[in-house]
Order: sequence, then structure tokens, then C-alpha cells
Amino acid sequence: MALVLAGVASTRAQDPLPSWNDTAPKKAIVAFVEKVTKEGSPDFVPVSERIATFDNDGTLWAEQPMYFQLLFALHRVEEMAPKHPDWKNKEPFASLLKGDVKGALAGGEKAVGEIVMTTHAGMTTDEFDQIVKGWIATAKHPITKRPLIEMVYQPILELLAYLRANGFKTFIVSGGGIEFMRPWTEKVYGIPPEQVVGSSGKTKFEMRDGKPVLVKLPEVNFIDDKTGKPIGINQHIGRRPIAAFGNSDGDLQMLQWTAAGSGPRFCLYVHHTDAEREWAYDRKSHIGELDKGLDEAAAKGWTVVSMKDDWKSIFPPEKQ
Amino acid sequence: MALVLAGVASTRAQDPLPSWNDTAPKKAIVAFVEKVTKEGSPDFVPVSERIATFDNDGTLWAEQPMYFQLLFALHRVEEMAPKHPDWKNKEPFASLLKGDVKGALAGGEKAVGEIVMTTHAGMTTDEFDQIVKGWIATAKHPITKRPLIEMVYQPILELLAYLRANGFKTFIVSGGGIEFMRPWTEKVYGIPPEQVVGSSGKTKFEMRDGKPVLVKLPEVNFIDDKTGKPIGINQHIGRRPIAAFGNSDGDLQMLQWTAAGSGPRFCLYVHHTDAEREWAYDRKSHIGELDKGLDEAAAKGWTVVSMKDDWKSIFPPEKQ
Repeated sequence: MALVLAGVASTRAQDPLPSWNDTAPKKAIVAFVEKVTKEGSPDFVPVSERIATFDNDGTLWAEQPMYFQLLFALHRVEEMAPKHPDWKNKEPFASLLKGDVKGALAGGEKAVGEIVMTTHAGMTTDEFDQIVKGWIATAKHPITKRPLIEMVYQPILELLAYLRANGFKTFIVSGGGIEFMRPWTEKVYGIPPEQVVGSSGKTKFEMRDGKPVLVKLPEVNFIDDKTGKPIGINQHIGRRPIAAFGNSDGDLQMLQWTAAGSGPRFCLYVHHTDAEREWAYDRKSHIGELDKGLDEAAAKGWTVVSMKDDWKSIFPPEKQ
Repeated sequence: MALVLAGVASTRAQDPLPSWNDTAPKKAIVAFVEKVTKEGSPDFVPVSERIATFDNDGTLWAEQPMYFQLLFALHRVEEMAPKHPDWKNKEPFASLLKGDVKGALAGGEKAVGEIVMTTHAGMTTDEFDQIVKGWIATAKHPITKRPLIEMVYQPILELLAYLRANGFKTFIVSGGGIEFMRPWTEKVYGIPPEQVVGSSGKTKFEMRDGKPVLVKLPEVNFIDDKTGKPIGINQHIGRRPIAAFGNSDGDLQMLQWTAAGSGPRFCLYVHHTDAEREWAYDRKSHIGELDKGLDEAAAKGWTVVSMKDDWKSIFPPEKQ
């Protein structure tokens, strides 16, 4: 009995997931990791095949009241406006410059496409990298006023570290822009650029003053969302994840693709249920809609995290 | 004899590049690696930025008398022919089935494109993976009769291991098909699928009997050659290599892109100069043309390996 208690005490001391309540999701995660890392077990998975993929918006960091990449684009429109006097009479820019984001986005996908292309193309990849780094260093959340890089989910940061400590390679697979994420994911999540999969525009190789540059073109290369997620995983990673983590219907095909492999599999949905500490939304949300995914998770026995019930804390402590 | 060999092995035990002669290229490689790994040195490069990219055909393995992927495609045409009786009267297949490869390829890029699309599309990615694995396990070189997976350059295998032992992440960046390489690169080169960049076709996500599959379409997604190499590097790796290795003009932009970064850089061309132990070709070769690249290497002071003069052995010892 003393030995058993000692065992319990020491595992608690080393709890790799301290921000998780001791509810079903945490138990399922730990059981999965212990199973696939136990040599000689029938469920053992070699290190090279321990691939885990994470959605970004709504899974690694928040996505309300709008995708943070859209905040970046709006900021860029303001910065670029002095050189584009015609924008005063041209939608969606005219509305944006008046501070009317809703009016600008009333133009739907076409308007969003125009805002993204205008703000994400026309410079070199190196220049864009610097622009993103400069912005993210000080960008704050419009409601909480916290730095955006602190609007990340503490329990998921712990999960990333726990998986990596157990030989997993952790990847981001996001509908967000690949070049928007790469400048900061290593610092914020410990995920290096080569392990980031995302949407992208085309680029063009050019020589400028004898120096090669890649110019970002206003042309879509790849949309890493829905069926694009397994396609992007196949293209970038070239093997099937054994664990996948998402929060919306945009992640459903990634979870299906992961679940369909042979051997042990782990699929998890983060369910935004905490209106007090974060936001509560699911089946009818314009951002991060989780509808079909909730049904399939129930039908397939995937793990669903209720942020309200399963997480002790949501965000990291505020820095002093 | 065994004792003598053992003795040789042990005196060389600390030489990480035993198949390299002690000529300029080996010295340049070692000097570069020692410089970037020496903490506190002004040329020190953190582990996460030690990215090295290697071309495949002609740099990691041989490419004469034709690209090995073309051997695979020809083999597939023969295997598929019984289900395609019309091929007997349809070029380029008619010539191929008569064993007239030259005649088939006389159709130029269009003919090659048709052969590749026919043999590399129409199945799922999992099916293609199995087809490639089955073929590569027994495929032999048409001239040397050695297994294709032994037609790899022993000095480059040693270089890969040496770089990895020094904290480098090694990538393939090849004009060859990404899904043709990934099934065997980990076993043969120690390079995992997620570190392979190559040309690709488009894929489509489908549900078959409730199971998700990715179907390979007869449509080009990306050509990872010439200016495509820096574009592919940016897309897949998301940071600039500090070292790059190639053998043809198809690698020139990759080397330029690598060289143009700040801090220490290393660019190397393998020059096929050994008509006896391998093949000798460069400026006027249809395969692996190295013309502009030789001039630029001389102008920029890049390292050029003469296979004849700088390599003690070319291929690994034959397995008994």
C-alpha cells in the first residue's frame, strides 16, 4: 500500500498535464501515450511514426472575435492605406478604413480574398517574414487586451510538450497562412517552420541585383482546410498521423484520415464551452463551426474536451 | 584478412568521411561543419537552423543511363499493358512495349508526361506506396545489375551521417516524384518522408466504403526543379538551408538561394568525372547537364567534387 501511494505521489509530482482536470480526456491522452510508447506492447509505435497534427485557430490559440490573421490583415490595410489613396472609395477597403469591419466583410469570400491578397502579396518572402514578426511582437487581442501570443491554450502547450517528451513529432495543420504562422510558431509552440502546414499563395523566383528572392504573388497555391488537410498532410508530412487535434468541422477530414490508419489512433476535439473564461460556440458559429464533427466524435468515440469542465486554466498566467 | 580489415577499420574509426580522399572538398566540408558547430564562434549556427538540402538523382544515387524513376515507369507500363490492349497501337506505349525506349522518348516531354501520368495516377496514395515498395525491393540497374538501392554514393551517405551527427537536419530536394522517393528514403538514406521535397501530382480526398482515401490524379501539382527548388524549399521547409548539395543546372537556383543567406554557407556540386567507376558527363549531357552551374561554382568559390579524384569509392561494397 505504501508503495502504491508512493507511486501515485511521484506520478502526481511529475504530472505532465497540470492544467488538465483529472477527467476523461486527460486519462484518454495519458493512456494512449503510455500504450504507444511501451516497448514490446502490441500497440507500440516506433518513434519515427509518432506524428501528431494540431489545428491552429481554436485549437492552439483563440479565434474569437475573428481569426487573428484577419486582425493582421486589417492592421496591414491601415499601414498601407497612405500609399493607396484610391482605397477611400473602394470596397472592402473603404469600410475597413472607417473602422467598419462588418461592412467590409459583408462582401463575403470575395472581400476577404481581396483583403488577404492585398496584404499578403507583392513583397518578398523575407520581407513578409519581417512584417509578421514586427506585428506579432506587439499585437494585442481586441477584447482581452492581452498579447496575441498569450492567447494560446495552456493545456495544449502542456500536451505538445508531453507528446514531444514521448518521442512525438508535433505538426501544425491549419487553414491559416503557412507564412503567417512560421515566423512565430517555434517560439510560441516549440513547432519549427518545417513542421507547419498551412494555406499558401504562389511565389516566384527572381534575381534582384544579383540576389535571388521569392516574390509572393496574389494567387492561391493551396487551401489547407477540410479535405485540404489530409491532402496537405500527405504533401508535407508524407505519412499518416497517429494522433490529431482540432476544434471545428474544418478539421473533420484530418481526424477521419488519422483515424483510418491501422494500429492505435487518437482523435480529439476541443469543444469551446466556456463563455466565462473564453468563448462558447459550436454548431452554429460562423467561426470554428463544430457540428458534423461533434456528431462524428460521438459516433466514433473520439475524445471531446469541454474547455469549461476539463481544463483548470485556459490561458497561461499573465506575464508581469 | 579479416584481421587486417578490422585494423583498417579501427584506425579510421574517427574519420567520419572514410570514402573521401584528403583533398580540398573533404577539407572544406569538415572546416564548415567545425565552424558552424563551435559554440561561441562568430560563425556558430544554432541546431534548429542547421538545414542541409540534397538533390537526389546524380547527387545521392546515380542517374545513368536514365533516371531510375523512368525505369519504374517503364516497368509499370509492362505490368499494366495486359489491361490496356489499345497501347499496342498508341505511342509512346507501343514503342515501349516493343522495348524501344528511345523511340518512345522521341515524343519528348509530352511522351514522358504521358508515361508518368499513366503510371503514377489513378490509384490511392497507399496503393502507390505499396507499388513503389514492391518494385524498389528487387529493381536492378540495367547495366551494373546491382540493386538500385545500392547505386547510391557511399561518400554522400557518409556525409549525411556526418551532418546529422553534428545536429543538421538533412532534406532531399529533388525533381523526382515526392511519392516515388518517400517509400524508401528513410531506409536507404536515413531521411524520413517529412524531409523529402519533390515534384508531385494533385490528389483528391474521397470516401470509399466509409474509409477516406487520397486518389492520385493525372494532373501536375508542382515541379521541383530549377526555380522550383527554392520555391519548394520555402513551401516545405520554411527556412533557408545553410548547406546545399547538387550535381546539375537543375540545382543551381537551390545553391544560389542557399548561398544568398547571411552567415556561413556551404554549396557543393558533385561533378561526374569518373567514366570507369561511374559515368562522366557534364556540360552537354541530356541527363544531369552541369554547365552554368560549373561556371557559377568557379566564380563563387563553391566546392566542386570530382568523383574520380576526390572519392576513394563510389558505391557501397556489394552485399554478399
